[in-house]
Amino acid sequence: MTTIKDIATYTGFSVSTVSRVLNHLDNRYSKATEAKIRAAAEHLHYQKNQAASELVTRQSKTIMLVITENSTNFTARLIDGIKASLTKLDYNLLLIYAGNDMDSQIEATNLILMRPVQGVIIVSVPFAERELARIKQAQIPLVFASINYANQDILSVASDDWAIGYQATRYLLDQGHRRIGLAGVDIESYIGQERTRGYRQALLDAGLTYVDRRVFAGDYSWQAGKDAAHYFVHQEPVSAVIGASDYTAVGLLNGAVKLGLSVPTDLSILSIDGTDLSEMVQPALTVIKQDFYKMGVDSMRLLLGIIRGGGQVQSQVIPFKLIERASVSPVEGA
Amino acid sequence: MTTIKDIATYTGFSVSTVSRVLNHLDNRYSKATEAKIRAAAEHLHYQKNQAASELVTRQSKTIMLVITENSTNFTARLIDGIKASLTKLDYNLLLIYAGNDMDSQIEATNLILMRPVQGVIIVSVPFAERELARIKQAQIPLVFASINYANQDILSVASDDWAIGYQATRYLLDQGHRRIGLAGVDIESYIGQERTRGYRQALLDAGLTYVDRRVFAGDYSWQAGKDAAHYFVHQEPVSAVIGASDYTAVGLLNGAVKLGLSVPTDLSILSIDGTDLSEMVQPALTVIKQDFYKMGVDSMRLLLGIIRGGGQVQSQVIPFKLIERASVSPVEGA
Repeated sequence: MTTIKDIATYTGFSVSTVSRVLNHLDNRYSKATEAKIRAAAEHLHYQKNQAASELVTRQSKTIMLVITENSTNFTARLIDGIKASLTKLDYNLLLIYAGNDMDSQIEATNLILMRPVQGVIIVSVPFAERELARIKQAQIPLVFASINYANQDILSVASDDWAIGYQATRYLLDQGHRRIGLAGVDIESYIGQERTRGYRQALLDAGLTYVDRRVFAGDYSWQAGKDAAHYFVHQEPVSAVIGASDYTAVGLLNGAVKLGLSVPTDLSILSIDGTDLSEMVQPALTVIKQDFYKMGVDSMRLLLGIIRGGGQVQSQVIPFKLIERASVSPVEGA
Repeated sequence: MTTIKDIATYTGFSVSTVSRVLNHLDNRYSKATEAKIRAAAEHLHYQKNQAASELVTRQSKTIMLVITENSTNFTARLIDGIKASLTKLDYNLLLIYAGNDMDSQIEATNLILMRPVQGVIIVSVPFAERELARIKQAQIPLVFASINYANQDILSVASDDWAIGYQATRYLLDQGHRRIGLAGVDIESYIGQERTRGYRQALLDAGLTYVDRRVFAGDYSWQAGKDAAHYFVHQEPVSAVIGASDYTAVGLLNGAVKLGLSVPTDLSILSIDGTDLSEMVQPALTVIKQDFYKMGVDSMRLLLGIIRGGGQVQSQVIPFKLIERASVSPVEGA
C-alpha cells in the first residue's frame, strides 16, 4: 500500500507537506506543489488511510451497532429505522455481533474501544455491567434499542415490556381464556422478567391464580416454541398461549399442528413482536405489534442528541398495539 | 481521550518509550519503566487506539462483510458459517450495508478503502464494476459469497444458479406439470439470468416451448411473491410456480390462499433457498435447499487463503439439494 512517505520520496517534498496537502490541513503550500503531490498520489494509487486521518481529525463519524444473533427477527426493521435517520448525515454505520456470552461481549467492547467511534447503539443484547462500565469510562455515547434496564442511568428506546405482558394476557382473558400459558420468555433477562410480571399481574387482576409452571422459559426461538407446544399439549393443558416472540409463536403453531391440534379452535396463540413473519403463516397471528422502525429512528436521534449536545437525552418508551388476526378464538360459552 | 503523549507528559518518559511499552514492540525498557507507564495508562484511563496501533503494525486483522438489505433472509446463516471459521483466529468481523444502488456501493467502498482492512467478503450484493476496480486497485483480498459472476477473475463461493433453475423446473416437469411459472427472479442480475436460463433449458429439453410471460420478474421479496400469485391466477394460468426465494414462495403461498386457491391441490409451489422459513409455513414448502452455512465457512477459508498465501484460491461451487415437502403435488393423470 502506498504511504505518504512514498509520495514524499517520489516527489521530493517533505512528509509533512504531503500530509498537509492530502489532508487539506492548511494552505501553506502553492497550487503547483498541491498539483504535483496530487498527481503523484494518483500515479502511485494512494488511498487515504482513515486510521491516519482519524488520528489527525479525532472525528471518526462512525456509529457502531451491536446486534445479536438471530433467535428473533426484528433487527432488520430496527436497522432500517437507524439507517433512515442517518441519511443525509455524514456518518458511517458499522455493525458487530455479540450475544449473551461474555466472550463475545468482551470482544465487541474491545472493538468499540479500540477504534475511534462517535457513538454506539446496542440492539437487544443485554450487555454485562463490566463491559458497559468500560464503554462508559471511555465516554463513548451509548444507547440501547429494543431492550430495557431497571437501571435508570442506561439510556434506552424500547417498548414497556411489563405493559406488553399485561395487555397480551388481558386480551386473552377478555376472550374468556382462563388457562393461559407464556412460552419462550427468557426469565434471566430484564425483558423476560418484566413480561412475566405483567402476565402475572393481569391474571391476579382478573381474580385468577398465577401458576408458575405455565411459564415455559426459553430464548425467544422457533425451537423454544416447538418445545413449548409439546409441553402445553402433554404436560400443562391450556386453552391459549402467548408466544414471547414471532419465532416462538410460529414454533407453537407448527408444534400444535404437528400434534394434531387446530389453531385457534383447539389452541389460541397470541404473538409478541408483529414482524412480517406473523402475517406469513396460516392462520395469520394475532399480535402485540412493536414499532421497531420507530425504535431505530428514535434511538439514532437520541444518540445524536448526546453526541452533539443539546438534544433530547431521556430514555424513551415506544407505543405498541394489539392487532387481531386469526389465531385467537373466544372460549365457547364464555 | 487520553493519548500516548499525555502518558509521556505525565510520566516524564518519551513518547517513543511509552509507545514501545504499550505496543509491546521490543524490550528496550526496564521492568520498572514498564510498570510506571502501565500504571499511568491505567490511572489516566488510556484506551489503546486501534487506528494508531494499526498504523504501527500495518495489520488490522479486520475482515469486512458487505451485506445487503433484507429482501431475502439467508444472510444470517451464511454469517454463522463465516463466524464459525473465524473462531480461534484473532480476526475482527465488521459488517456494512450496501444495496443495488450506486450510492450505497460507493459509500461501502469508501469505508473499505479508508480503513485498514485485511479482506472483504461481499454477500449477495452485485457490486458495480467501477467500485470493484477500486477495491482491486487497493489490493484488498475480496471474495463474493452466494453470488456468481460470468467474469472468471472474480472469486466467489456460491451455488450453480443455472443448475438450480434447471433442477427446480425438471422436478416439476417430472410431476407432470407443463405450465410452470417462475416468480420473483431479478432478471437484471447474473443470478436471475442464470436461473432463468436453467428454467428455459429444462423446458426445451422436455420438448416444451419457453413462454416469456411465465417469468414474473421481481426482487426476491415477499411482495413480489404476492404480486406474482395474483398475476399467475388472473393473467397467466399455470399449475406450478417456482419461487425465486423463500420469501417469494411464501408470498406466492399467501397470495394464492387469499385468492381462494388450495396449495398444492390448485397450485404447486417450489421454493429456492430452503431457510427455516420454508418449514414454518403451512404447507411446508418443497425446496431447493442451498447450503448457506457452508458458503460462509468456505468463503472465509478462501479469503484467508488469499490473505495468507498458499491456500486454495479458486472459485467454489457449493452443492444444493432438493427436499420434498408438501407444497407440490403431481398433476392428475400425468
